[in-house]
Amino acid sequence: MARRACIIAVGNEVVHGFIVNTNSAWLARELGELGFDVAYHLSVNDRQDELTARLKAALSEGLFIVTTGGIGPTVDDNTRQSVAAALGVELKLDHDALAKLSERYAAVGRKFPQGSERQCKRPEGSKFIANAFGTASCFLARHGEGGIAVLPGVPRELKGIWAEELRAAVIEEFGLHERFFSRELRVFGIPESDLDLRVKSLLESKEAEGAILVDDAVMRLRWRVAATEQADADKILVPILDAARAELGDLVFAEGNIELETCTVDLLREKQLKVACAESCTGGMIAHLLTNVAGSSDVLLESAVTYSNDAKQRRLGVSAGTLKSHGAVSGETASEMVRGIQRESGADICVAVTGIAGPGGGSDAKPVGTVWLAAAMANEVRAWHLRVPGERELVKWRTARTALNTLRLAALHGKLPETIAHWVAPPA
Amino acid sequence: MARRACIIAVGNEVVHGFIVNTNSAWLARELGELGFDVAYHLSVNDRQDELTARLKAALSEGLFIVTTGGIGPTVDDNTRQSVAAALGVELKLDHDALAKLSERYAAVGRKFPQGSERQCKRPEGSKFIANAFGTASCFLARHGEGGIAVLPGVPRELKGIWAEELRAAVIEEFGLHERFFSRELRVFGIPESDLDLRVKSLLESKEAEGAILVDDAVMRLRWRVAATEQADADKILVPILDAARAELGDLVFAEGNIELETCTVDLLREKQLKVACAESCTGGMIAHLLTNVAGSSDVLLESAVTYSNDAKQRRLGVSAGTLKSHGAVSGETASEMVRGIQRESGADICVAVTGIAGPGGGSDAKPVGTVWLAAAMANEVRAWHLRVPGERELVKWRTARTALNTLRLAALHGKLPETIAHWVAPPA
Repeated sequence: MARRACIIAVGNEVVHGFIVNTNSAWLARELGELGFDVAYHLSVNDRQDELTARLKAALSEGLFIVTTGGIGPTVDDNTRQSVAAALGVELKLDHDALAKLSERYAAVGRKFPQGSERQCKRPEGSKFIANAFGTASCFLARHGEGGIAVLPGVPRELKGIWAEELRAAVIEEFGLHERFFSRELRVFGIPESDLDLRVKSLLESKEAEGAILVDDAVMRLRWRVAATEQADADKILVPILDAARAELGDLVFAEGNIELETCTVDLLREKQLKVACAESCTGGMIAHLLTNVAGSSDVLLESAVTYSNDAKQRRLGVSAGTLKSHGAVSGETASEMVRGIQRESGADICVAVTGIAGPGGGSDAKPVGTVWLAAAMANEVRAWHLRVPGERELVKWRTARTALNTLRLAALHGKLPETIAHWVAPPA
Repeated sequence: MARRACIIAVGNEVVHGFIVNTNSAWLARELGELGFDVAYHLSVNDRQDELTARLKAALSEGLFIVTTGGIGPTVDDNTRQSVAAALGVELKLDHDALAKLSERYAAVGRKFPQGSERQCKRPEGSKFIANAFGTASCFLARHGEGGIAVLPGVPRELKGIWAEELRAAVIEEFGLHERFFSRELRVFGIPESDLDLRVKSLLESKEAEGAILVDDAVMRLRWRVAATEQADADKILVPILDAARAELGDLVFAEGNIELETCTVDLLREKQLKVACAESCTGGMIAHLLTNVAGSSDVLLESAVTYSNDAKQRRLGVSAGTLKSHGAVSGETASEMVRGIQRESGADICVAVTGIAGPGGGSDAKPVGTVWLAAAMANEVRAWHLRVPGERELVKWRTARTALNTLRLAALHGKLPETIAHWVAPPA
């Protein structure tokens, strides 16, 4: 498993910095999973001679090169020509590909655009890679130890073609009998250092390579092994994941590529539970995250974004006395907010948040990041005092996800949880 | 102005794809503004010999290289050594930099960490570049036509050091008497092709280089000129911007790097106007965007995220008859929603949205992307039928920004606007 690869992004917009290149990172992870050691990423402009020189240099090192961009119908799309030149072969029109593309235009009643046959050319001896996501056909060519695969620059197209066509073609062409298989758990509510301590022995497994990947408060615990097929890998991976789940319990919210809001909505739908929110410092972000998930209309009844004190009183029945004696950011106000939204909406589980997102509004007693989160379920109400680190957008982000986690835990256990996240302040 | 540059990012996390490299795009834009032609971006791992070879190759092409990453205190931070080797000079400890760093640790009562003196080494003959944002000192070295500047990999640090120290040092070292100065307008509510037609003659100005940069529905109209100072550039740029503003009127929402939500909140604060929202298909996103802006508590009273029909009736007084005869997604429902939130909140300007974000819920008569947006100001109520292209998250995104634009236009003119965005459907 010592094959080496590189990724070359083609396009002036990328080189001049007007597009942030996310494709290379995505492809690097995919190539890594296939067992390739990625040597470098390069972004170059669309000058044909320069690109040809870069491709030749990489081929002479025995690299498998994946290019992105520069394969469209316009005259500055030069990647096809550069690749043929680097391979030292001719660029030929693929008549089958052209016929299929013409059919696709005909099927939707559109005229075949002038110049579009350019998108059906590929180097002699290369393998055709179909593109069901756009009009530019792709290809894969071997050259010595390495080779070149050519993809478009549009992230959605590129990912689709990789998953549906190119990945399997690369496995076959390079005879990748052994490659990496990975499984990951997603975790919320624990600091990275604590997580590391609790799963240290599993991360140091000699059978699988373990890693913690951090995306702010959400952590991914990943293990991977080299194997010939998923079933063999699972013999090693599944017991490790089971042990991690046993150690971490409900800190684990999902396996695989699933967001906290998606898993929360899915669980609530499965349990046929309705939710409602009352939001002050998150300003609608809890509802925004929930409603990013398709099917959330089965789950979310309403969110009362009560930014002003007047709205807290009118919409949620928070008393003027409570606001006056304890302030808008207090356990008392949060509890009255959550009782108010429960009474109004009749939802099964309710959350309410009030806090100081900053940059203004903080004091010595209640600094920026002071948040009260309350939840209600049936007759039970509970409030937590959070000290959320970070600036305005991070305070919103972290508080909103803590609220989602509270909904998830309540749905999971059928009652309000004790612990919701590591930024709950110790009792005064 | 034919100086050439390249950007080299150092780090295994980048090459393996676990970090998306945003630094290179940012630096490419900055170098472009200084008049450098950026030839390529490269991301490499932290092997010292490989990096040295890449640096030597770039220097031999006469490039000015900016590196990011690999200058921290640990043993795999090899950039300093690689740069010295590529330049063919010795790496020396900068005793002044070490003394300053030791003082900074002493000032906060922390012990000087072992190995941290590594961060104060730089190649003989290089210019010291202070880092007020972290502990790793930076440097700039000339070499023939080109040279090397070394920055850390943390985006916040890198941007700070560039702005405060390195940019001026590069201008001085390379004698950049003439560089690019640019100004841009931000535009919302018009398709790119129409915008292009309306400002075509200005974009083709012979005195300044014009471009349209598109970030979905928000477009940036940018012109730049080569000049020795801002005042000279402004003699050319200001009349062009004035002409564009005259042509586009209230389609222009800001000059420079300002988001639509920021400019909306700032304008509402300036005019001392209060707003409130009623949101169905945007699910809280309008309020979320408004509350991302510091100071929005002076402006936003509340948002009623009424996802269920029951909530629309209870919270906003939408009548059962309207919901039954016209449906939740209709001009009638949107108008009742906005009247309801106006009555409840007493806000000066109110917006309400109801629509089908998808993927489910569409029909032939009301396909996904059918949205009704209503606004109320004093005694006036108006509703617009939108056909918003795209999938769930795009429908939310575009509808929320259209709502922000409606608030902005109402605040600007002191009355409800006629036109709010190009996806308003023609009358049936």
